[in-house]
Amino acid sequence: MLSKPQIRTITSLQQKKFRREHGLFIVEGVKSVTEFLHSDYSVQRIYHTAQAAAKLPKIPQNIKSVEIDDLELKRISSLRTPQGVLALVGIPDYPPLTGDVLQNGFHVVLDDIQDPGNLGTIIRTADWFGLKRVICSIGSVDVYNAKAVQASMGSLARMQVYYTDITQLVADSAIPVFGAVLDGSPIYDTDFGQEGLVVLGNEGNGISTAVLPHVTHRVTIPRIGNAESLNVAISAALFCSELARKGKIDPGVY
Amino acid sequence: MLSKPQIRTITSLQQKKFRREHGLFIVEGVKSVTEFLHSDYSVQRIYHTAQAAAKLPKIPQNIKSVEIDDLELKRISSLRTPQGVLALVGIPDYPPLTGDVLQNGFHVVLDDIQDPGNLGTIIRTADWFGLKRVICSIGSVDVYNAKAVQASMGSLARMQVYYTDITQLVADSAIPVFGAVLDGSPIYDTDFGQEGLVVLGNEGNGISTAVLPHVTHRVTIPRIGNAESLNVAISAALFCSELARKGKIDPGVY
Repeated sequence: MLSKPQIRTITSLQQKKFRREHGLFIVEGVKSVTEFLHSDYSVQRIYHTAQAAAKLPKIPQNIKSVEIDDLELKRISSLRTPQGVLALVGIPDYPPLTGDVLQNGFHVVLDDIQDPGNLGTIIRTADWFGLKRVICSIGSVDVYNAKAVQASMGSLARMQVYYTDITQLVADSAIPVFGAVLDGSPIYDTDFGQEGLVVLGNEGNGISTAVLPHVTHRVTIPRIGNAESLNVAISAALFCSELARKGKIDPGVY
Repeated sequence: MLSKPQIRTITSLQQKKFRREHGLFIVEGVKSVTEFLHSDYSVQRIYHTAQAAAKLPKIPQNIKSVEIDDLELKRISSLRTPQGVLALVGIPDYPPLTGDVLQNGFHVVLDDIQDPGNLGTIIRTADWFGLKRVICSIGSVDVYNAKAVQASMGSLARMQVYYTDITQLVADSAIPVFGAVLDGSPIYDTDFGQEGLVVLGNEGNGISTAVLPHVTHRVTIPRIGNAESLNVAISAALFCSELARKGKIDPGVY
């Protein structure tokens, strides 16, 4: 039986402010919770229904696991249709991003992306294509937002997501900075070399004016039809796919 | 001033049943409404605030246009943040799909896609890459759903979206049927020839067991990392992009 203060604490994690205060975020659903249990993330507590318990892997003894009923789950879930299990997971603290980490490979850099579904989908896609990190500007949507976690379909458990001053990052970059723009060179002919940052802009405004001057390679997904732009998660996927097609992503390196 | 029955009729269009009954759907926002005004769709009525009126193009005399205030707009809008203008647009009635229409080109076929955001994004992406039609199974989400219309970012105004028995369609197909599966040939090496249907499956279950036997070319987006699958709108985009890269989409034909 959950107390009112417990319910209040858990539901407060639907807001970024309280996620940062408690250092915790929510993961829901058997598949996602299982992936976080098998990851480097620190799962702190699991709330599950009797029915869902059978579908979960063995929960390590150091993780407190609480059986609750459907009504209680509904009260703490951020999903319209709760999925039997909800975990509280620690927000990780990564070592600072240094040039060493970025060299000899490719990283997706997101410039103030706002839609949590887009961010989650980019993480899922980057994971499919073998990347290990996504770098977000400070002003980007919080990846620990329930919708972003959900859209990542468990891939967040395998990815490192950094928040950093990306203007500084691209200004100081010793490696090429590729930027997705509407008037650059065709992506299919682009020589990506062996390392680089791939910058994708905000949903409405594209790459910010502070970041744009530091883009060393302006790259475009050629348009045949009439849409004004592509969704940012779609653009990110097309860049990841081009890197993969050209043999630039080595699963051994990442 | 909108009457209660008027408000009821408009908000009823948020449900598929009433959209079909009235043959109408809702388009919101200056950009989208402008694109529908410039399209072959029949815009029947426009509700706009005084502020939004200045941003709209000249509205033809045969379209009834009604000025309303912010509060009234909020009552009829399906958006959390209404965008100044809401149009009622007629659901088009296309001639039946025949082999002639499908030959000498490529069409995306969606097998019971459920998420309206995914459908809208696929329409936007197909429009970017110069396709003119998207074909949905009867069980797919309704494209005139507000979220699908919104996610298409105006591209729906330029696209024909068919709902048909796709099992019959692929069974009778005289042209190749490419299917997005997890264990097919790599997409980058696939010879798409000059025409075909590109089938993408449901978000959870992939291509249905009724459709799968009619897939003549099983195609896979090669995975390097660990995600279990890709989002269906991402997969659709990667197929469209491959067709574009290989010069299979001729803007003159579509």
